[in-house]
Amino acid sequence: MNRTNRAVLLIHGGAGTLLRSKMDEVQEAKYRGALQAILLAGEAQLAAGAAALDVVVEAVRQLEECELFNAGKGAVYTAAATHELDACVMDGSNLRAGAVAGLSRTRNPVLAAQAVLRHSKHVMFVGAAADALAASHGLEQVAPDWFGTTQRLEQLQRAQLTDAGALLDHDGQAPIVEQSKFGTVGAVALDLQGHLAAATSTGGMTNKAVGRVGDSPLIGAGCYANDATVAVSCTGTGEAFMRSCAAFDVSALMAYQGLSVQAAAEQVVLEKLPKLGGAGGLIALAANGEFSLPFNTAGMYRGHVTLGNAPVVAIYRDES
Amino acid sequence: MNRTNRAVLLIHGGAGTLLRSKMDEVQEAKYRGALQAILLAGEAQLAAGAAALDVVVEAVRQLEECELFNAGKGAVYTAAATHELDACVMDGSNLRAGAVAGLSRTRNPVLAAQAVLRHSKHVMFVGAAADALAASHGLEQVAPDWFGTTQRLEQLQRAQLTDAGALLDHDGQAPIVEQSKFGTVGAVALDLQGHLAAATSTGGMTNKAVGRVGDSPLIGAGCYANDATVAVSCTGTGEAFMRSCAAFDVSALMAYQGLSVQAAAEQVVLEKLPKLGGAGGLIALAANGEFSLPFNTAGMYRGHVTLGNAPVVAIYRDES
Repeated sequence: MNRTNRAVLLIHGGAGTLLRSKMDEVQEAKYRGALQAILLAGEAQLAAGAAALDVVVEAVRQLEECELFNAGKGAVYTAAATHELDACVMDGSNLRAGAVAGLSRTRNPVLAAQAVLRHSKHVMFVGAAADALAASHGLEQVAPDWFGTTQRLEQLQRAQLTDAGALLDHDGQAPIVEQSKFGTVGAVALDLQGHLAAATSTGGMTNKAVGRVGDSPLIGAGCYANDATVAVSCTGTGEAFMRSCAAFDVSALMAYQGLSVQAAAEQVVLEKLPKLGGAGGLIALAANGEFSLPFNTAGMYRGHVTLGNAPVVAIYRDES
Repeated sequence: MNRTNRAVLLIHGGAGTLLRSKMDEVQEAKYRGALQAILLAGEAQLAAGAAALDVVVEAVRQLEECELFNAGKGAVYTAAATHELDACVMDGSNLRAGAVAGLSRTRNPVLAAQAVLRHSKHVMFVGAAADALAASHGLEQVAPDWFGTTQRLEQLQRAQLTDAGALLDHDGQAPIVEQSKFGTVGAVALDLQGHLAAATSTGGMTNKAVGRVGDSPLIGAGCYANDATVAVSCTGTGEAFMRSCAAFDVSALMAYQGLSVQAAAEQVVLEKLPKLGGAGGLIALAANGEFSLPFNTAGMYRGHVTLGNAPVVAIYRDES
């Protein structure tokens, strides 16, 4: 057992056009409060000796439950005004993973991903079969319209009034370009046993084509964890993250080139992804407890806590 | 334009328990003849200056059309006696990719993946939406039972008579362990313009759970191409390939550690995958025209041709 005296939790709630000048003070306080509360809960779990996998699943479950974020309740709408939710979890101690895509009835997609990891010899399930698997393990099923909110429906309606080909971010302010906001959520943790884990969950993109799967549920793209290197959760234009295997690439750069987690994460987010038109960011936590939260957008909802210290929450570029 | 004087095509038709002692002579001749014909057709395309992407798509389309292989016509059955087909293509010249999973009506899954690459801003579609996208681009749709054959249905029936939890290989001879055969097909090519491409297509595993997605349609797991390094197509126990990002890892080992394509491919197939219980193999073709076709099973249906030379086809371990 490679016990450490350090336990860490990082979370994110999406990246994009998060400018102080455009942010409502009350709304900003809500986001900061939500991130802070989730970090505090995770810190308590870590202090009690919880496994990293359980801590990231619980953190993402709470992010899903929060309507502010585009995952679980509050997920964005597809072009057909439906919801399709994706999630992935990975345990760095044994490289086991579980992933689901295209859920429409399971209240907490991250719990469905965890059920796949725990109970299936397979790694990934899609569509109705993924909901059925979750239900068979006792996970709460909801009506497909449960995930929606009035705000998200208005975003879809605005999106559909614009260029038919444009995909709006989940704030509905801009087409899917650098100006967008990507509301995927995620968490990575290092526990007192020295194990790493990662979890990612998303509602996708407003007005996305039905059946489209992005990077979030894909191991090595939007989620990856390996005790030998790093745990990573991504948010952004999923297609670029898929084409560059962004999460695994952070691990490969550390393992094969000896880069620090910061150097590896920044190379992927600041150098490689932009070349493929990839906007967004990621959170990366190394086995030694060092971490990095780089993004190439104006901001990223993010936070981190190291056991025994106060949580740190940030949104804009000029924050720690 | 980085023109080369070398053009190469590699193909595979699955790995597994392919022992001379168990192989019927007539059946073996059919497999060798099919692989040989596909290599010759691809060589002619390459000689005429075709793009690597077009060559791998056509090679895989022909493998799909051949009932011997578990992709397209001749795909294995799910536990519900249905078919769910997956495919992925990637263009090494620009890292564009297209992927589909859970098709049940599109005759040639690899053409559906190519249509996603060509026509969509997205990379991956699953389920009925993926069939619909293919149909909207004029790809032939068939009745869901078109893919089946009497032999495959008998395999399913034998599988379902055994341990309910066991997944049979597509020859129905053994549970999904090292003894199995994994019938995924794939191709990688280097064209005269110096570009690489990869394509992978599969019917999955006999008696697989409905909704299960393996490595074949996942970029970096079962398929990857990058002009800077290598094109890779995998076959085997998909879950292990997903958890280890097998295809991308070959590229990362070459890019970051300077390994040859042979050293990188062998490290992944012979050292890393077995640690995760991963049985199977892959074909890997470097940008310099060197290639490797390692497998950790008894055999792998495989072949390669270098422009101007006779095709080489092999099945067993003791062949070139």
